[in-house]
Amino acid sequence: MSGNSFGHYLTISTFGESHGIAVGVIIDGLPPGLEISEKEVQIELDRRKPGQSDIATPRKEADKISFLSGHFEGRTTGTPLAMMLRNTDVRSGDYSDIMHKFRPGHADYTYQQKYGFRDWRGSGRASGRETAARVAAGAVARKWLSNHGVYILAYVQSAAGIVCESFDAAVIEKNPMRACDNLAAEKMATRVRELMESGDSAGGIIECRVSGIPAGLGNPVFDKLEADLAKGILSIGAVRGFEIGAGFKAATMRGSEHNDEMDEHGFRSNNAGGIIGGISTGQEIIFRAAVKPTSSISMRQSTQNSKGEAVEIRTEGRHDPIICPRIVPVVEGMTALVLMDHWLAQRAMRKEQ
Amino acid sequence: MSGNSFGHYLTISTFGESHGIAVGVIIDGLPPGLEISEKEVQIELDRRKPGQSDIATPRKEADKISFLSGHFEGRTTGTPLAMMLRNTDVRSGDYSDIMHKFRPGHADYTYQQKYGFRDWRGSGRASGRETAARVAAGAVARKWLSNHGVYILAYVQSAAGIVCESFDAAVIEKNPMRACDNLAAEKMATRVRELMESGDSAGGIIECRVSGIPAGLGNPVFDKLEADLAKGILSIGAVRGFEIGAGFKAATMRGSEHNDEMDEHGFRSNNAGGIIGGISTGQEIIFRAAVKPTSSISMRQSTQNSKGEAVEIRTEGRHDPIICPRIVPVVEGMTALVLMDHWLAQRAMRKEQ
Amino acid sequence: MSGNSFGHYLTISTFGESHGIAVGVIIDGLPPGLEISEKEVQIELDRRKPGQSDIATPRKEADKISFLSGHFEGRTTGTPLAMMLRNTDVRSGDYSDIMHKFRPGHADYTYQQKYGFRDWRGSGRASGRETAARVAAGAVARKWLSNHGVYILAYVQSAAGIVCESFDAAVIEKNPMRACDNLAAEKMATRVRELMESGDSAGGIIECRVSGIPAGLGNPVFDKLEADLAKGILSIGAVRGFEIGAGFKAATMRGSEHNDEMDEHGFRSNNAGGIIGGISTGQEIIFRAAVKPTSSISMRQSTQNSKGEAVEIRTEGRHDPIICPRIVPVVEGMTALVLMDHWLAQRAMRKEQ
Amino acid sequence: MSGNSFGHYLTISTFGESHGIAVGVIIDGLPPGLEISEKEVQIELDRRKPGQSDIATPRKEADKISFLSGHFEGRTTGTPLAMMLRNTDVRSGDYSDIMHKFRPGHADYTYQQKYGFRDWRGSGRASGRETAARVAAGAVARKWLSNHGVYILAYVQSAAGIVCESFDAAVIEKNPMRACDNLAAEKMATRVRELMESGDSAGGIIECRVSGIPAGLGNPVFDKLEADLAKGILSIGAVRGFEIGAGFKAATMRGSEHNDEMDEHGFRSNNAGGIIGGISTGQEIIFRAAVKPTSSISMRQSTQNSKGEAVEIRTEGRHDPIICPRIVPVVEGMTALVLMDHWLAQRAMRKEQ
Repeated sequence: MSGNSFGHYLTISTFGESHGIAVGVIIDGLPPGLEISEKEVQIELDRRKPGQSDIATPRKEADKISFLSGHFEGRTTGTPLAMMLRNTDVRSGDYSDIMHKFRPGHADYTYQQKYGFRDWRGSGRASGRETAARVAAGAVARKWLSNHGVYILAYVQSAAGIVCESFDAAVIEKNPMRACDNLAAEKMATRVRELMESGDSAGGIIECRVSGIPAGLGNPVFDKLEADLAKGILSIGAVRGFEIGAGFKAATMRGSEHNDEMDEHGFRSNNAGGIIGGISTGQEIIFRAAVKPTSSISMRQSTQNSKGEAVEIRTEGRHDPIICPRIVPVVEGMTALVLMDHWLAQRAMRKEQ
Repeated sequence: MSGNSFGHYLTISTFGESHGIAVGVIIDGLPPGLEISEKEVQIELDRRKPGQSDIATPRKEADKISFLSGHFEGRTTGTPLAMMLRNTDVRSGDYSDIMHKFRPGHADYTYQQKYGFRDWRGSGRASGRETAARVAAGAVARKWLSNHGVYILAYVQSAAGIVCESFDAAVIEKNPMRACDNLAAEKMATRVRELMESGDSAGGIIECRVSGIPAGLGNPVFDKLEADLAKGILSIGAVRGFEIGAGFKAATMRGSEHNDEMDEHGFRSNNAGGIIGGISTGQEIIFRAAVKPTSSISMRQSTQNSKGEAVEIRTEGRHDPIICPRIVPVVEGMTALVLMDHWLAQRAMRKEQ
Repeated sequence: MSGNSFGHYLTISTFGESHGIAVGVIIDGLPPGLEISEKEVQIELDRRKPGQSDIATPRKEADKISFLSGHFEGRTTGTPLAMMLRNTDVRSGDYSDIMHKFRPGHADYTYQQKYGFRDWRGSGRASGRETAARVAAGAVARKWLSNHGVYILAYVQSAAGIVCESFDAAVIEKNPMRACDNLAAEKMATRVRELMESGDSAGGIIECRVSGIPAGLGNPVFDKLEADLAKGILSIGAVRGFEIGAGFKAATMRGSEHNDEMDEHGFRSNNAGGIIGGISTGQEIIFRAAVKPTSSISMRQSTQNSKGEAVEIRTEGRHDPIICPRIVPVVEGMTALVLMDHWLAQRAMRKEQ
Repeated sequence: MSGNSFGHYLTISTFGESHGIAVGVIIDGLPPGLEISEKEVQIELDRRKPGQSDIATPRKEADKISFLSGHFEGRTTGTPLAMMLRNTDVRSGDYSDIMHKFRPGHADYTYQQKYGFRDWRGSGRASGRETAARVAAGAVARKWLSNHGVYILAYVQSAAGIVCESFDAAVIEKNPMRACDNLAAEKMATRVRELMESGDSAGGIIECRVSGIPAGLGNPVFDKLEADLAKGILSIGAVRGFEIGAGFKAATMRGSEHNDEMDEHGFRSNNAGGIIGGISTGQEIIFRAAVKPTSSISMRQSTQNSKGEAVEIRTEGRHDPIICPRIVPVVEGMTALVLMDHWLAQRAMRKEQ
C-alpha cells in the first residue's frame, strides 16, 4: 500500500509514466460475468484524450486500450482485469531544459525531495497521463453501475472566472469546455484563448451528479461515502478543493435552512448532496471539485535549479491552457470507482435475516 | 476494512456509540519508546469536551481517558496502544420521541437504510461522541510529531456568517469560539446566542496550519497528502467541504498568479498550501474545512417516521448551537494522524544509498 | 497495518498484554442483526481459560467478557463490536528474574531486538493471553457461521508422542487433553504428568474439521482459502506447522492416488482437505497444526542476559506442561474468522446475473 | 483486496491467465534508486521456465520480461514497477475436451463454483503460469535483499519418495530435480521417468534457507514472520503444507529438547528455524513446503461434467510429471517478497531515540 492502489472491495492498481513504455491498471474484485468490451472503455478514454479541440494540448496519443487478462468471451471472469495503453507520442528531445530546473506549480521539486531522484521526462508519474488508467478502470465500473441503474454526469460549472447560469445536460459533450451552459461555454473558450495567447492558463470548477444510487451506501465512521469521494477526487492532479451538497455555503447557513426536511414522499430538499452521516440518502449525489489553472505556462517564471540556484524558466511545448474539460471524465471515473466499491461493500455486510 | 479503521502505516481502529458503555481506539504501528501519558491525552480531550462554555451543549461527560495496553513505564511499547473513555452522562429517557422519527439533518434515516436497524440512543455510532476516540489517538500522534518539530494549529476562521479579519494565535484557546480574531469571536458568540434563543444553529469554517513538515511526504498517485487529509477531514461528521491552499479560489486564478515561484531561498508564495503533486513542499500546510450548522435544532420540523408517514419533530435536549469550536481539536487530531502515517510511510521507502 | 489486525472483509483488531489492564478486540464488518450474547462468547472463553485441569497452569483468570459497543437489544448493530477482558490475576512479583534474562523458547530476545524495549511482565504481548481476544472474536464468527449451517470442530490428534487411533467427537470436551480418542487421552495425560514432574513439557498436533462450507469460498491467487487458514493458524503462538488434507503425506503420493476423482454424487475422496486451487470444494475442510512443547519449563537452562553474558535460568511459576488443549478453541476461533471473512468476500463479488 | 495483491509495505498485484494475452505484476512500495535490469529478472524467470529438462513439460514459453514503468536510467524510481510477459505458446485447440469436464485435482470444479463461469483455456488464472509474475517480482526483492546481505536458497529435499541424505548447495542448480544431493537427485529422476511413462506424477518437499536476516523482523500478533511466510508459500498452487524449523517434529519433542538455549555467542541450536514469537532471531531461517503430485496425469480418471454426470477423462498434453524443480524459484521469490515487506515495515516503526 504505497499509494498506487485505490478502493477496498473493488481495488485498482495503476502504473505508468508520461514518457515510459505504457500506462495501465489492474482491477481486482470485479464480479464475474460483466459484459464489457475494449470499445466501451475506448469511448471514455477518447473523452480524456489530448487534442480534442483548439483549447487543448496538441499532443497526440493513440490511447488505444488493450485488455490483457480477466476477460473471456466478452465478459469479466472474476479474476484481475488488466488493461494497458502504450505511450506513443514521446518526444525525448523536449525536456532537456527542465532536467535541472523545477517548474513552478509542478511536482518537480517535491518528487526530487521525496524520491531523491526524478524521472524528468514529461513529469514522469506526476503527469496527468496516469489518469488514463483511472478513466479506463472507471469505464468498467460505470458499465457495472449503469447495469444497476446508476448514471454519472460531470461537467464544467465555471471556468476562467465565468460561471454557468443554466444547466442543459445535452450541451455538455458538444462544447469544447464540457460546460453545462452553451452561452457560458463560448465565453469561457474566448477567455481561455486570450490567456493562451498571453502564455497563461485558467482553472475552473467541475460539478458531478449521480442518480440511481440506493440509500444505504457508505461505511462510517472513516470510509464515509463523501470522505472516499473526496479522497478519490483530491487524488486527481490539479484538484484543490471538494465540497458536497451545499458545501462551503453550508458554513453560512442556519440549521433550519440547511436541514433537509422530509415528508411522506421523502426528502424535500438536498442540501446534503445525497449523503448524510456518510451514507447515501437515495437522492441525487452532487459534489464539486475546484481545479487549479494549468501549471505549464509559457510565460517566464522564476524558479530554482537542482543546485538551489535562482534561475528563470519558460515551459515551452504542448500543454492545455485549461485542464477542466479533460478532467471531467476523470472525475466521472473516480466517482464510479468509489460508488461501486461501496456498493460491493454493502453486499458483504448486508443485514442478517 | 469496513470503515472503522484509518491510516495505512499508523492505523487507528475506533469503536463506541453515544449511549453505549464506552468509546475507544486502538493505535497500531506506533513506534516503541514514545513518552506519552494519560494526562497529555486528557488535555486534548478536555478541549473537545462538551460544556466548555455557554454556547455548547451542557451534556456532562467526564471523558476520562484510560490506557489499556501498549504502554509501559511511561512509554509506548510498539504493541497496540488501546485507550478507552467510559460514557457516563447517558440519559436513556431522552430519546423516546426519536425512536420512530428521522431527525432532519441527522443520520437516522440513512443508518436505518444501511443497517436495517438503528441504535436510536443519542444517535448511536453517528453521534459526534465517536470523535473523542479520534482526539485521543490524535493526541498521541501530535506528541510524536511535536518531538519531530511539527506544530499543528486549527481554529475557527468564520462562523455564523462572521469572518475573522486578523490572525492572532494567542487568542484562539481563550475565546469560546476558538476563533483567531477576538473581535470576530465576540460577534460570532453574540450571533450564535441569538440563533440558540430562536432554537436554531450555525456553521462555520475551520482553518488548519501545520509547520515543521519536511518536504517529501505523500504517496502519489492515490494517497496524495492532500487526498488523505481530505478524507480524514471529510470523515468528521458535519464537515461538508475541504480545500487546500488557494482552494476554490484557485479556480478563478490564472496560472501565472497561482504558480508558486521559487528563488534561491525557496518558495516565494504558498498558493499550493504546502502540497504539490500530492507531496509536501516543506512549507506550511494550510487547509480549510466547511462545517454545516448543527442538525439538532429545537424548532419544529417536518420529517418522516419509520412507517413512512409525514410527522413533525422538535429535537429537545442538549445540543451545541454551533459545533465548530469542538471540532477544532478533532481536525487537529485527524491532521496529526494523517501526517504521522505519511511520515512512517516515507521511512519505509526511503531511497537506497 | 502493523500486525494486530486480521481479515479483509471481517476484520479484527486486538490489543492487550499478559499483565496490563485488559485484553480486547474490535470486530469490524460484522453484519447487523446477528443475535449474540456475552454468555455465548463466555462459553468459548471458558474453554480457553487456564486452570481447567491438573495438567494446566493454575493461574486464575476470571476471563469475564464485556461487550463495549456495537450491540443493541441483543443483536449486532453493524458498527464495531468491541469486547474486553480485564486482567485480574497479575502477580507483579513473579518476574524479577526474567527482567534481564532471555528465556529459551520465549520471545524475550526477539521482542528486545524488534522493539529495543521489552515489557517483561509475563511476556507482555507475546503471552498466550492475547489469544483470549481471538477466541472472543471467533465465538461471534462461529455464531454467524452456525446460523449458516457451518460446524467447526478441533481436537488434539496427537500429544507427547501419543497418537489418537480412533475418532469420537463426543469424548473431546470430556477429557482434559481434548483428544478425540479416550484411551489415547489417558496415555497422553499420564505422559504429560511425568514430564511435568521432571519440570519438562510436551507438544502435539491439533486437527480441525469444518462441515457446511459451500463450494466457492477463497480468493486466488494470494488469498487462497488454505493460505489464509495457514496464516491464521501459524499466527497462533507455539504453532510451527500447518497442513491441509493429505498435507506432507501428499509429497510421497502419486498423482493417481492423490487426485480426488468425482462421479455423479460428487467427490469420491478428500485428499485435498476440502480446498482445491484455493477455493472450497463443498466437502469437509480438514487441516492439522503442529504445536511445539511449552517453552516455560522449570529445568535449568542456559541463556543470555541483556548484557550478552551467558547465564542460567529456571522459569519458576505457573505454566501449562502442554498447551494443546487450550489451543483447541483458539484454532477453532481463527478458523471461524477466516471462513466468515471469505464468506463475506464472496457475497461482495458474486456473479452478475 | 480480492486476493490478487500480496504484501503490506511492499505490495505486488498480479494479473494474467495461462492462455490470455500476458501475465504481469505491479510492485508498489519499492524504494527508489535500486539498480535492477530486465536481464537480472530474466535469470530468475529462466529458472522457472518450462522445458528445462526431459522431466518437465515441453511447453515452450519465451517468458521474456519487459519493464513497463517505474524504471529509469537503470534504477527504480519509487513509483510502481510494472513488468509483463506475453504468452506465446498458446494452443487453443488442446482444450476442447476439458471445456465441459472437471479435471481431478484441478481447480476446474471450484472455479466454476466460485465464479459461475470458467476460462477453460489451460486452467486460466488457476494455471501455474501466474507464478511467473511472482518470480519476476521476487527477483526484484531478492536483488534488494542481496544488497542488504540476505541470501535465499531453496531446493528439493525429497521427491517421489526419495529423500536427500546430504546437502551440497553447489549441486542444486546442476541437477534437473534441483535437489541438494546428487545421488538422490538421480534416483528421483529415474523414479519420475517411470511414473511419467505410466502417465502418473509425483510430489515432494522443498526446503528453503535464508541467511543474513537481522533479528527483529516480524509483526506480531497476526503478521508474524512465519505466518506471512506460510501464507505466501501456501498461496503457491500445489503446496499443501508448511513447517518452520523443527516443524511437525516439534510436536513430539520435549520442551527441554526443543528450546534453543543461548550462551554468550548466541543461540546454540535452531529448532525455531530462525523465528521465535513471530520475529526473526538473526539465525538462519529454515522452512519446508509439501508439494502435491502434479494433478495433470494421462491416466484415465473418473470425474463429473458440467451437467453433473459421471464421465471419464484423460488429460492429454504437455505437463510436468513433477512440479517441484520449477516451484523452487517460486518459493524463493515469495520468500523474498515476505522478507523485504517485513524489512520495510520495521523501518517504518523503528524505536524512537
